[in-house]
Amino acid sequence: RGLGDVYKRQVNQGGPNSALEKLKDALKEEIKPSLSLLRQLPGALEDGKGSVTFIRVGRKTVSVRPGSGNVDLLGLAVDVGTSTLAAYLLDLREGKELGAKAIANPQISFGTDVISRITYVRENGKKGLEELREAVVSGVNHLVKKLCLKAGAVPQDIVHAVFVGNPTMLHLLLGIDPSSIGEAPFAPVWKEALSLRAKDLDLMINAEAVVDLLPFVSGYVGADTVACLLACRLHEADGSFLLLDIGTNGEIVLGIGGKIFACSTAAGPAFEGGRISCGMPALPGAVSHVSLQARGLRWEIIGEEKPRGICGSGLVDLLAILLQTGLVNSSGRLVSRPGHFLSSHIVSYGNQLAFQIANTVSLTQRDIRELQLAKAAIRAGIEVLLEYAGGTPGEIETVYLAGSFGSQMRPESLVRIGLFPKDFVSKIRPVGNAAGLGAVIALLDCNALEEADEITKRIKYIELSRESLFSSKFVKHLHFPN
Amino acid sequence: RGLGDVYKRQVNQGGPNSALEKLKDALKEEIKPSLSLLRQLPGALEDGKGSVTFIRVGRKTVSVRPGSGNVDLLGLAVDVGTSTLAAYLLDLREGKELGAKAIANPQISFGTDVISRITYVRENGKKGLEELREAVVSGVNHLVKKLCLKAGAVPQDIVHAVFVGNPTMLHLLLGIDPSSIGEAPFAPVWKEALSLRAKDLDLMINAEAVVDLLPFVSGYVGADTVACLLACRLHEADGSFLLLDIGTNGEIVLGIGGKIFACSTAAGPAFEGGRISCGMPALPGAVSHVSLQARGLRWEIIGEEKPRGICGSGLVDLLAILLQTGLVNSSGRLVSRPGHFLSSHIVSYGNQLAFQIANTVSLTQRDIRELQLAKAAIRAGIEVLLEYAGGTPGEIETVYLAGSFGSQMRPESLVRIGLFPKDFVSKIRPVGNAAGLGAVIALLDCNALEEADEITKRIKYIELSRESLFSSKFVKHLHFPN
Repeated sequence: RGLGDVYKRQVNQGGPNSALEKLKDALKEEIKPSLSLLRQLPGALEDGKGSVTFIRVGRKTVSVRPGSGNVDLLGLAVDVGTSTLAAYLLDLREGKELGAKAIANPQISFGTDVISRITYVRENGKKGLEELREAVVSGVNHLVKKLCLKAGAVPQDIVHAVFVGNPTMLHLLLGIDPSSIGEAPFAPVWKEALSLRAKDLDLMINAEAVVDLLPFVSGYVGADTVACLLACRLHEADGSFLLLDIGTNGEIVLGIGGKIFACSTAAGPAFEGGRISCGMPALPGAVSHVSLQARGLRWEIIGEEKPRGICGSGLVDLLAILLQTGLVNSSGRLVSRPGHFLSSHIVSYGNQLAFQIANTVSLTQRDIRELQLAKAAIRAGIEVLLEYAGGTPGEIETVYLAGSFGSQMRPESLVRIGLFPKDFVSKIRPVGNAAGLGAVIALLDCNALEEADEITKRIKYIELSRESLFSSKFVKHLHFPN
Repeated sequence: RGLGDVYKRQVNQGGPNSALEKLKDALKEEIKPSLSLLRQLPGALEDGKGSVTFIRVGRKTVSVRPGSGNVDLLGLAVDVGTSTLAAYLLDLREGKELGAKAIANPQISFGTDVISRITYVRENGKKGLEELREAVVSGVNHLVKKLCLKAGAVPQDIVHAVFVGNPTMLHLLLGIDPSSIGEAPFAPVWKEALSLRAKDLDLMINAEAVVDLLPFVSGYVGADTVACLLACRLHEADGSFLLLDIGTNGEIVLGIGGKIFACSTAAGPAFEGGRISCGMPALPGAVSHVSLQARGLRWEIIGEEKPRGICGSGLVDLLAILLQTGLVNSSGRLVSRPGHFLSSHIVSYGNQLAFQIANTVSLTQRDIRELQLAKAAIRAGIEVLLEYAGGTPGEIETVYLAGSFGSQMRPESLVRIGLFPKDFVSKIRPVGNAAGLGAVIALLDCNALEEADEITKRIKYIELSRESLFSSKFVKHLHFPN
């Protein structure tokens, strides 16, 4: 059961007591009225002839309506990703999802990653901050409109919303300058859970709707990561686990012996197809998987017949094959091997070599370097956390992969490129958009916000940029396994 | 000392803690941040190099600014009258009035009294309510602008505002339908003190400013009356007292034996010069006093040399003289008495007689009837309260007259027309705009809001329209004393 609830009452309308006193009598409790409650109250009492329905979220009365008919009680969960906004419309009473929809974050036109958005704010001041705020709010409002249209619902009936996302995205959503996250010591403006009002955020849902933001751990371990832990109930896990949410940044959480450690690595967007010459998100037209056949390669394309580019899982598959067949050596160099059964794929690409799998899709030497850097950063992050926790990879029972990264990846390929140690193959468990699921849970379970707070307090954050151990592990893992 | 306060702190900016955590450390306490506090915080910390000044009203942080320089801490007190808006600008730290200004309530174009405004809302629905709300808010914003201009102050520095007024005016100020006040049982939508945010009221002061509304007793005994009691500290009075605030409505409060009783009489605006053929407010050009001389009359005019009309105090003086000289008999009839030394003043005025004191100013038979009705209503109200309290007029030690009504009236004339029993002559004490003063006190004294709440709870309200005793007293006091 979520925080939202509907109460129907018959209010005795006689006598000189104020409408509010009569309402309190009907409710048998004190209420602290908001201005909009007072504005709605006389009309609701008159039109309903004393019979009123009111909608609460937690202790806040969001809306009072005349009569005792059915009212919709809707909730909105939003995962504000650097690249993608994902929103879920929920029936709060039935606990049922009425729809889900994702679009690109409209802020992308201001920069593809967190740092470029922060830079935009730094260079353009308050105006720039407002542009970014408006961009993401308009994106969310667009999703609300589409979701409501499809579900035959009214945005006004959305009375509770939960937002998750990385700290920079949530700063921008609220119009709060995220500059301090952009440089050491990477301090955000706030970290705790916030409870705000839809009107103050310019969200096109019920103006008085309660908008909860999940708390975060640090400037780079955000409410999205906390939501993942909540969704997978990892804070209650007995065994040891690793959770990776590899998007534009890579958040890593290690749970071991009842303790939880977390770090963020500036892995870059390579595993999402970002900064890769033919890279693209896992959308129609993307090569999503590549397999080695006896005489060549086979690949799968999402949706279409002709490849338009290659997404993260395809990249990892391809790199694994190149390593396996010796076309990329352990230092990450693409080597032309005349006579090799795949040698016809090796082509010149400007001043570098590239491995071409189709006319439109090739993997260049520089692309391999990007993947190599990302892989080394994540692997080094995992090892630093294990070192802090005094644990070993062998102790880890489950490796949760969150986000689109996890859902398409072949465990064998991830291990082959050295992102994980070998024995992780059987431990990997994709959990989809766990961040979005965590936001949904926070809408449907009135204890979840408190749990999120507890989770956040339990997490020990490790700042990798200050760890010399990270640097040495990073250099070591720039090498691919033989 | 008021609720507003200024704190200066040096915030340690190092380390990965959030700006909010650092602020809490510097304050050594928990704070629940508002969205605007979070929006202001990073800029204030950066521009002030960690030195910040923040402004609080009660427990609410209204504003955070960089540096430790001087900041203005201003307050606004407003008395929203049916006819007049009076505003006071205050320096909250010095407890000093920086300016005061009054204008006609712009709602007057929608009707001169409470009932006509309520009727306008009833007939025009939400649109009408919004028109009236906008009218009074624009009036208040106009006063703010003028007061700030004159004082060289910035509206943004107004961080606390207190509003008083009759219940209908406060309903309209907040955009809340006052219709229920317009008919029995005259129930308002709320009665208790409200604490709101300037932004929600569209007031052009600091958007986060705390806006307090004093509580009221009933649909017709308002926050203005409560403010009068507060200003005169009548709730602490040992002796018995009567307080009259005679405006468009007449509020009467009786304190006796530690108990407080209150009622409202629909006295009409005659004592303010309303509904009187040559009546006008106590403004330049108004005959304010009339005296009987050996051979005729003498009158005083406010400001100018030629009379443009006659205000309440002039009307009462004139009526007293007409009673004294027998030109008006005890039933209120203007009688033409040939040979009387004032008989030349008696003229025909359409189908009625009138007493003309100048070419432009006369008192008609119908005007006398208006004054007669108003006088009877107030006197009957006083007697009903005394009856309820089990007291006698003789027990009353002081009669406080609030508002412009009280400041100009001659006690002798009030007694002569029978508004008060004879022995009140020496007990009358005008207290000026006590309602406005009460609002000022609520700004400057942090305990005053609580006191206002206690006062309101102590008052026993008597609804005269349900009292048969009132009807009989009213009929009795339609007669003037011989």
